[in-house]
Amino acid sequence: MAKKNDSKADTGAAPWNVPVGGKGFSLARVPTNAKPFSTGDKDKDKALLADLAKEVDALQDIFWADQRFKLLVLLQGMDTAGKDGTIRAVFKETSPLGVRTHAWKAPTELERRHNFLWRIQQQLPASGEMMIHNRSHYEDVLVPVVDEYISAKTTAQRYRQINDFERMLSETGTVVLKFMLHIGSDEQRERLQARIDDPTKNWKFSEGDIAVRKQWDAYQRAYNDLLCATSTEYAPWVVVPADSKTHRNVMIATLVRDKLQSLKLRYPPPDPALKGLKIV
Amino acid sequence: MAKKNDSKADTGAAPWNVPVGGKGFSLARVPTNAKPFSTGDKDKDKALLADLAKEVDALQDIFWADQRFKLLVLLQGMDTAGKDGTIRAVFKETSPLGVRTHAWKAPTELERRHNFLWRIQQQLPASGEMMIHNRSHYEDVLVPVVDEYISAKTTAQRYRQINDFERMLSETGTVVLKFMLHIGSDEQRERLQARIDDPTKNWKFSEGDIAVRKQWDAYQRAYNDLLCATSTEYAPWVVVPADSKTHRNVMIATLVRDKLQSLKLRYPPPDPALKGLKIV
Repeated sequence: MAKKNDSKADTGAAPWNVPVGGKGFSLARVPTNAKPFSTGDKDKDKALLADLAKEVDALQDIFWADQRFKLLVLLQGMDTAGKDGTIRAVFKETSPLGVRTHAWKAPTELERRHNFLWRIQQQLPASGEMMIHNRSHYEDVLVPVVDEYISAKTTAQRYRQINDFERMLSETGTVVLKFMLHIGSDEQRERLQARIDDPTKNWKFSEGDIAVRKQWDAYQRAYNDLLCATSTEYAPWVVVPADSKTHRNVMIATLVRDKLQSLKLRYPPPDPALKGLKIV
Repeated sequence: MAKKNDSKADTGAAPWNVPVGGKGFSLARVPTNAKPFSTGDKDKDKALLADLAKEVDALQDIFWADQRFKLLVLLQGMDTAGKDGTIRAVFKETSPLGVRTHAWKAPTELERRHNFLWRIQQQLPASGEMMIHNRSHYEDVLVPVVDEYISAKTTAQRYRQINDFERMLSETGTVVLKFMLHIGSDEQRERLQARIDDPTKNWKFSEGDIAVRKQWDAYQRAYNDLLCATSTEYAPWVVVPADSKTHRNVMIATLVRDKLQSLKLRYPPPDPALKGLKIV
């Protein structure tokens, strides 16, 4: 794979890596149409993506055999930012047996009667498992913040509770990768319009999407704040320029692949007892 | 897709369709090396499989949008029969978001303290979901029967309890597809031997596999009995000749595709309120 990508992924100073504590970070300064992980050619990007998906599949097999780690990939982003499409593309070659997904919706009545991390605990990867959260516990510092259901004090408390929770996950073997899919307002308008103009896609559209779109700036502020407050050494945030779907997929696939490679995964050693054994 | 396959899939008299109540059925008389769903040419079979996987993916999208049904695909078979490989092949094109899997292991201490269907209830598809069970509640009429942990009376009771449970699932919108992957003893020997001879595959091999292999005939009898006792109109068993991996995949993909097509799935009708709406 292109060395260029690897080195870019590693440089903490890149504007898409949210520094610990958010020092000097501004979401508004990350261009949504940038393509830092692109080869510069769309066909080459697609070929690269195909290779990356195969690598991720091969690494999943060793990840499962190795059993030392758990993987949690967490995707956030405004409506139409491409969370579903990312999952399909990055894990294109991975068997449904090898990766689990959970799409978080508005909490149920029972879930609301518990602390906001209660339901998350029930959907975590076990040893050797890869799990993707489509939306996440970060919804609990987005909607309630923008709609002012919770105070600034409670919001700050939740940031800390999230950091404590993710530290615990990290300390107990979970690799936590957090991606914020960053699209521009114009791009979202086009994607929402497409869901309206194609009658077979109407069912994907909800009136609520328009209400949330009207709060665009407030959501961008809430994202900026949570990114700064919850980017940690053990669970850093990466902001993914996502106006280009191909770039978004290449970037996330590269970062997932790089992280898996960095774990130095290995198959369990051959069992000496099995050497030369003949099945009858 | 080849009409030949469709019609074969529909004929109840085919030896791989276990008749309701098992009347006249004998597992031993279903050849493990038959290829009833093959085109007769391996390359054509692979191309067919690729098409089928794309069809299953397209149907999954409508299945989800439609929301009227739930799908439970259940795979049973001796060790190395190819359950993992089937899942990978049939759902090759389906996003991890569209299909969930659960691999059943020996019950935990907590699970053993409950009735044997308790844990199954916790892993069922909801409306619009597709779920695959890798092994299933049928393990509870296999190991305990062969090892004589339960009496013939309890076994018969479990058959009835399973039928009642699956009838309830069917009546509440779940399409239940049950496949028994049927391999021969020689084929299993080769596949187990491969896990021993390839040191990177040793971790997939367990000493227990040899013990179970020694009980081959007893397992075949237990399978024969459960197939006869639990093939119902609402949840029929299909025995899949599985010595050939390609044939196995083509057959199951065909039957899954055919069943989904028969549901006459449809996208929700266009929303008149959205007609002409412009997003700003």
